[in-house]
Amino acid sequence: MDWKTLIGAAGDRIGGHVRRTPVIEVAVPGIAQPVALKLEQMQHTGSFKARGAFNTLLSEPVPEAGLVAASGGNHGAAVAFAAQQLGHTAQIFVPEMAGPAKIALIERTGAKLTVVQGEYANALAQAREVEERRGAMQVHAYDAPATVAGQGTCMAEWEDQGLEADTVLIAVGGGGLIAGAMAWLDGRRKVVAVEPEGASALHAALFASGPVDVEVSGVAANALGARRIGDICFELASRQQVSSVLVSDDAIIGAQRWLWQELRQLVEPAGAAALAALLSGVYVPEPEERVAVLVCGGNVAPDPVG
Amino acid sequence: MDWKTLIGAAGDRIGGHVRRTPVIEVAVPGIAQPVALKLEQMQHTGSFKARGAFNTLLSEPVPEAGLVAASGGNHGAAVAFAAQQLGHTAQIFVPEMAGPAKIALIERTGAKLTVVQGEYANALAQAREVEERRGAMQVHAYDAPATVAGQGTCMAEWEDQGLEADTVLIAVGGGGLIAGAMAWLDGRRKVVAVEPEGASALHAALFASGPVDVEVSGVAANALGARRIGDICFELASRQQVSSVLVSDDAIIGAQRWLWQELRQLVEPAGAAALAALLSGVYVPEPEERVAVLVCGGNVAPDPVG
Repeated sequence: MDWKTLIGAAGDRIGGHVRRTPVIEVAVPGIAQPVALKLEQMQHTGSFKARGAFNTLLSEPVPEAGLVAASGGNHGAAVAFAAQQLGHTAQIFVPEMAGPAKIALIERTGAKLTVVQGEYANALAQAREVEERRGAMQVHAYDAPATVAGQGTCMAEWEDQGLEADTVLIAVGGGGLIAGAMAWLDGRRKVVAVEPEGASALHAALFASGPVDVEVSGVAANALGARRIGDICFELASRQQVSSVLVSDDAIIGAQRWLWQELRQLVEPAGAAALAALLSGVYVPEPEERVAVLVCGGNVAPDPVG
Repeated sequence: MDWKTLIGAAGDRIGGHVRRTPVIEVAVPGIAQPVALKLEQMQHTGSFKARGAFNTLLSEPVPEAGLVAASGGNHGAAVAFAAQQLGHTAQIFVPEMAGPAKIALIERTGAKLTVVQGEYANALAQAREVEERRGAMQVHAYDAPATVAGQGTCMAEWEDQGLEADTVLIAVGGGGLIAGAMAWLDGRRKVVAVEPEGASALHAALFASGPVDVEVSGVAANALGARRIGDICFELASRQQVSSVLVSDDAIIGAQRWLWQELRQLVEPAGAAALAALLSGVYVPEPEERVAVLVCGGNVAPDPVG
């Protein structure tokens, strides 16, 4: 697949609809070089997901029946927002663990929202039923080329902003964001995939030499808790031999605390997971190595102004 | 005073100690042009105050007795942090209304902290006593050339980042930040001074044609509640004929909510005050007018991760 062309086209397509999110350099304890952060949680609806959602909706005709999506929360909010902005209807299915903050976020877009008992797979089953029965367009959360190309615009934008890092740390759930980054970078920088110990679909897949189902749990589960890594992500990660590391829930909570205390950025656990690998010493850069961390989601619970 | 030279020198002096804070463009309801925000609450200790503090400490020899400052919280935290970084001792006096979040922030720097009963003036009196009795260096919060020149680096940096605005909205307490901005801009862009209705020292001074004492109250009082505008600020504001507008506490709280819901930025009331003037319609730009808003403080209470 010619990812460079796909991601470039995605950037042109969604440019008027997504924000160019800011970058900042900070000193991180124990790391010799300044660390570059991209604050993608300032994207519309609080995560990078708006990029893939807009790219998908703008890539092909949306049927009369509108959009349907299943989501732990962030993807659903992004699809609902993109649908609202572009004048489509949207029906979003979320599992209970999405939590009240993300549920309220989706409700504010005016989308039809159904909270499904049990886990994400149940929400996905209902979304697929709507797709088949009513002809609604299903927007996949991470394992579709249009989604991955949309997420890839985040890394393309970062390079356009003058990124100087040797290494980029990115949190992984289903793998859409990191797949977009790997697709864009094509091996030009080292990519470190960071997963919670309780949601390690990529790590397990790399060990098993193929996507396998994993159990999911932990503080970041509603954003990073994919049961199985996307095929697109797995293929890119295998071919590019990305480093895969795991972080504990305590490390994630510590990184959340650090981002607030040092930088006044209040992010959800998934948004702090990549930084947690640096702060907890799970990933130790070389003295001359310049490291960058993608902060990817800010929909913390409880909503601090709710 | 040759402010351009002073601010340029301040920028060189503090460059290795302060952060280059990010900027972002956002759509704001009812405003035709995109609005540029500078997120200065990501500065060390959560406000622009670190700029003036570092510039002051690096401008002249610090005595053995160290630093002393009186503060509603943000200035004290900045002086305490700068002292810690540069190896000096610091004694900070704050009034009770500084609140637990800002008090904890100062305590984390290792500074000696005294919480003073009553209002800011009582804290200032005690700080002056330490200055005189022990020979400690008093760092003025807003009405000293080194402080103003340090704060002026914020606007200089913003222009270096490609600011395109016709008009810049800035919150005013004692006037150090806006004085630095006016000093740097020298009339090249329109400056709008935004104060809470309950803390309107500049507005009152412009009306009275000279600094006068005002009563202070309201949600932003611990950061913007100066009883009297600084002379440096008043002189610049009079000469440059800045626009002076007032915002209600409700408008400030609404702007805080907007910054979180739209941009995942959790800021203190003072940090949202300038934006409140736009969102509440107190300042209405012309259709072609490009507006920028300085977000200046993020030390919200209660501390969301405390």
